[in-house]
Amino acid sequence: MTDEDAVLAANAAYYDAFAEGNVDGMSRLWASDEVSCIHPGWPVLVGRQVVLNSYRNILRNPDRERIAHRDHTVMIAGSEARVLCLEVIDGTGVALAATNLFRRIEGSWRLVHHQASPIASLFDEAPEPASAPPSKRLN
Amino acid sequence: MTDEDAVLAANAAYYDAFAEGNVDGMSRLWASDEVSCIHPGWPVLVGRQVVLNSYRNILRNPDRERIAHRDHTVMIAGSEARVLCLEVIDGTGVALAATNLFRRIEGSWRLVHHQASPIASLFDEAPEPASAPPSKRLN
Repeated sequence: MTDEDAVLAANAAYYDAFAEGNVDGMSRLWASDEVSCIHPGWPVLVGRQVVLNSYRNILRNPDRERIAHRDHTVMIAGSEARVLCLEVIDGTGVALAATNLFRRIEGSWRLVHHQASPIASLFDEAPEPASAPPSKRLN
Repeated sequence: MTDEDAVLAANAAYYDAFAEGNVDGMSRLWASDEVSCIHPGWPVLVGRQVVLNSYRNILRNPDRERIAHRDHTVMIAGSEARVLCLEVIDGTGVALAATNLFRRIEGSWRLVHHQASPIASLFDEAPEPASAPPSKRLN
């Protein structure tokens, strides 16, 4: 398995844990320190405990969204890896642009950061985002 | 100057270039490859040319927002650094959660990734974001 394959497998495991509501699995995916997360619409969360508490609340909600992930870009520099991907919320057409950062720790790629932000269609009824989005729309 | 000071200076230089509409300064801040960016509401942009074209268009717009940055968290692992901060758009009370990734290249911290996503108040008139935001609101 190449490094890129291993990073993509870790990235897929994140979305699998989310889909399954697997709090223990999600917990194992995250590194023990230097952890941060920005959920859509949320402020910055810093620290493993704070981040995992947020996932515990989200994963225990049976009405949470079902998220498909696609269009991955992987960049690896030494023990640090960045995955960029498109998240599509099932049944809504809502799409988010996501960044997942991984660090190789004792041979495993562990999450150290996640950020997902809604792509422009979410803003159609809201004030203008900070900069006008490009003409490329996803739905 | 500590590594953390140097990273924060590079982070401040990014916002200075934005404020000044300094396309050349912005261009010098970004690394030559493994570059990505997710502007608020935009899809993923990958590659130096694509990212810098987006900044050129934004910086040439005299009506672009004035952005203050504060509440920085810095994490450094070898030659990779992560800055998390709060962006506040002048005169609006709109706040965004931002991630800026830097890589030390020949002694300088260069940007390799930027993502900023609006914090919940922007969504007040829009569909619910992917997960309910926490009670902490910024305005």
